[in-house]
Amino acid sequence: MRHRRGTDEFTRVLAFSDALFGIAMTLLVVGIGVPRLDDAGDPGELLSALWDLEPEITSFVISFAVIGRYWHAHHTFFALLDGVDGRLMTTNLVYLAFVAFLPFPTALLGEYFSNPVSVAVYAPVVAAISGLEVVMFVQAARGRLLRRAVPRGVFRWGMTASLLPVALFLASVPVAFLNTRLAVVVWLAVIPAELLLNRRRPAGADAYFSSV
Amino acid sequence: MRHRRGTDEFTRVLAFSDALFGIAMTLLVVGIGVPRLDDAGDPGELLSALWDLEPEITSFVISFAVIGRYWHAHHTFFALLDGVDGRLMTTNLVYLAFVAFLPFPTALLGEYFSNPVSVAVYAPVVAAISGLEVVMFVQAARGRLLRRAVPRGVFRWGMTASLLPVALFLASVPVAFLNTRLAVVVWLAVIPAELLLNRRRPAGADAYFSSV
Amino acid sequence: MRHRRGTDEFTRVLAFSDALFGIAMTLLVVGIGVPRLDDAGDPGELLSALWDLEPEITSFVISFAVIGRYWHAHHTFFALLDGVDGRLMTTNLVYLAFVAFLPFPTALLGEYFSNPVSVAVYAPVVAAISGLEVVMFVQAARGRLLRRAVPRGVFRWGMTASLLPVALFLASVPVAFLNTRLAVVVWLAVIPAELLLNRRRPAGADAYFSSV
Amino acid sequence: MRHRRGTDEFTRVLAFSDALFGIAMTLLVVGIGVPRLDDAGDPGELLSALWDLEPEITSFVISFAVIGRYWHAHHTFFALLDGVDGRLMTTNLVYLAFVAFLPFPTALLGEYFSNPVSVAVYAPVVAAISGLEVVMFVQAARGRLLRRAVPRGVFRWGMTASLLPVALFLASVPVAFLNTRLAVVVWLAVIPAELLLNRRRPAGADAYFSSV
Repeated sequence: MRHRRGTDEFTRVLAFSDALFGIAMTLLVVGIGVPRLDDAGDPGELLSALWDLEPEITSFVISFAVIGRYWHAHHTFFALLDGVDGRLMTTNLVYLAFVAFLPFPTALLGEYFSNPVSVAVYAPVVAAISGLEVVMFVQAARGRLLRRAVPRGVFRWGMTASLLPVALFLASVPVAFLNTRLAVVVWLAVIPAELLLNRRRPAGADAYFSSV
Repeated sequence: MRHRRGTDEFTRVLAFSDALFGIAMTLLVVGIGVPRLDDAGDPGELLSALWDLEPEITSFVISFAVIGRYWHAHHTFFALLDGVDGRLMTTNLVYLAFVAFLPFPTALLGEYFSNPVSVAVYAPVVAAISGLEVVMFVQAARGRLLRRAVPRGVFRWGMTASLLPVALFLASVPVAFLNTRLAVVVWLAVIPAELLLNRRRPAGADAYFSSV
Repeated sequence: MRHRRGTDEFTRVLAFSDALFGIAMTLLVVGIGVPRLDDAGDPGELLSALWDLEPEITSFVISFAVIGRYWHAHHTFFALLDGVDGRLMTTNLVYLAFVAFLPFPTALLGEYFSNPVSVAVYAPVVAAISGLEVVMFVQAARGRLLRRAVPRGVFRWGMTASLLPVALFLASVPVAFLNTRLAVVVWLAVIPAELLLNRRRPAGADAYFSSV
Repeated sequence: MRHRRGTDEFTRVLAFSDALFGIAMTLLVVGIGVPRLDDAGDPGELLSALWDLEPEITSFVISFAVIGRYWHAHHTFFALLDGVDGRLMTTNLVYLAFVAFLPFPTALLGEYFSNPVSVAVYAPVVAAISGLEVVMFVQAARGRLLRRAVPRGVFRWGMTASLLPVALFLASVPVAFLNTRLAVVVWLAVIPAELLLNRRRPAGADAYFSSV
């Protein structure tokens, strides 16, 4: 069944997704426990105890930024839609499952940054979320759920731009077993790669994809 | 009192349900704790520690899939409604209580899969949620809250199709005390049973029940 | 500033309240931990471990019922409104603070039912929530935020009916120090008292107050 | 891209923010654990155990009041808007990151009130939230997202009034190292300072800024 923009059923998909995003982002703070001190009034002791919490705080900041960025992309994508169907709603649920799961691999990465297994768990989850964005876009285009049909050239360019982070994040897994810092360099390579791709951006792509 | 579709009061029932669904699904990740390692940099040790988390991760995946499936059914059901009344809102609250409770029996099942008592707790909760879906449908039909009256033949067929999982999940409880794997076979029997029923699906049922 | 029904600002107050209600109700399940067994496959051991969880499960059921009932009353009250102002939004925030706090006294009561101090913490919180419902109704009537003006006789009757549970819950505190079961009898006395009051219900009250 | 008031995309920003605010406020109660007693029925023991929970309960009350006040300000600000753009949505995400983080410094302050390091963590977070309110207002004014253009005099007065708490909270950090109670006096100085500024409030400011 198809639910057009303007019905409560369309809005519900957004409201449900937003509740899930909001909770995933807020739950992150629960992981940061208040330290126990021997001398409650000693500034030096509290400062060093807070210093020990640095991985948890870094993990909160990264998770919030990553999930926030996906919320922004989700917002941009659904703004293109004229409606949803059962298939897209199911893919959205699978997408949200990975979003809800993300706090775990992020915490893992925060705790064991130098361990390649952390990267081997984290990077595929991020790749899956980006990949499911692509799946939803294809389903929307095929199911004629987009507000306007996408020109063929724009579609092909958009697919390349969207699959690039998927490919780089998957490629970072074997790299991590050589050196975890090098894996992060592969992640950051998304930025110059997207900038290069942006130069070949076809006219009319702006209405569908936000620029980097 | 009756609140028609289009009022803030109708939308609120959906928004409140969605908040509850979203939280129940996101809270599941809290149960997966980051493991403590002796040697933070040892890939083998982290891999085997993650392996020990397999029941928690399986439990997250199953819970997310089960609650996600109910959210989808809830979305389909409320799309049929022209309004809500106090009685339906109360039943919806009882239904949501079981949804909010579901993470506990799922965690139990994840931890003690081979213990028949886990099945004896999990299966009735799932049966109750499916049963309350039936109750809400009957209340909506009787209270003339559906957008269109349901033909008698469609109604009878729909009741059979909806009560089938309730019956099979309840029947799985004594089976579990013989063999817990056999109980899961009974659960999976829902799929061929629904496919058989679908062959006898009366014309016009598509507008009320999504196909399996 | 005043925000009329139909604006995003009015809807936001409802959506925010619903998010808070939904979370308070779902968080309750977090308190029920999966038991640790010596023999994972022993049905008798799991059954007795679940039996030990009975206070936590009872506490979940009571909390869900109590907060669910307040959600229902909140829904009924806001359905009467034509708009909100800053004062009502502030009172609503104070009201929601007590709702968000409720899981703690409920857990306390579930754990220490026979201890009068539990009752002395729980009952005033419930009385405060009911009392703040009254405050919001008075503010709405005075601020001309109701869809229709309330007749004087209906208003006076409604105040009596609403303050009755406040009075009985406060009265239960000293009673609890004699006998905690007697305090629960005082709580349950709300039901016959409201039924008696309902007999003296003035004509036209149905549009403002749901019947018990 | 710009999303005007009345679209699902505009409403989504509010719904997402409200979900995050609601969760941040409700999660606070999780920090208050039910005490374990030796004698479950002893009122004196439970009373003294609850007394020991006083910092956790105070921390809940302060956090709820502080986040509630920011929710109110967020509600007032978005009521002025005619639409949102990508830049404002991004700033709103950064703002919400600090809101979601706030429970941690509040818990720290509740636990180590007399330790200046707690103040040195808490005050800058509050200053950041107030500062980001100012940034959002400037972005909205520059991006022509406000319903009505703000007169120059009103804008300048509003900036002064909004930056005052930022300045005082930052100034309280060095003061805390002399005396933490004196730091709280600096925080409370916001109230008389705002009252003084209110006397110089230009005509027409009421439509943009709520009075203290």
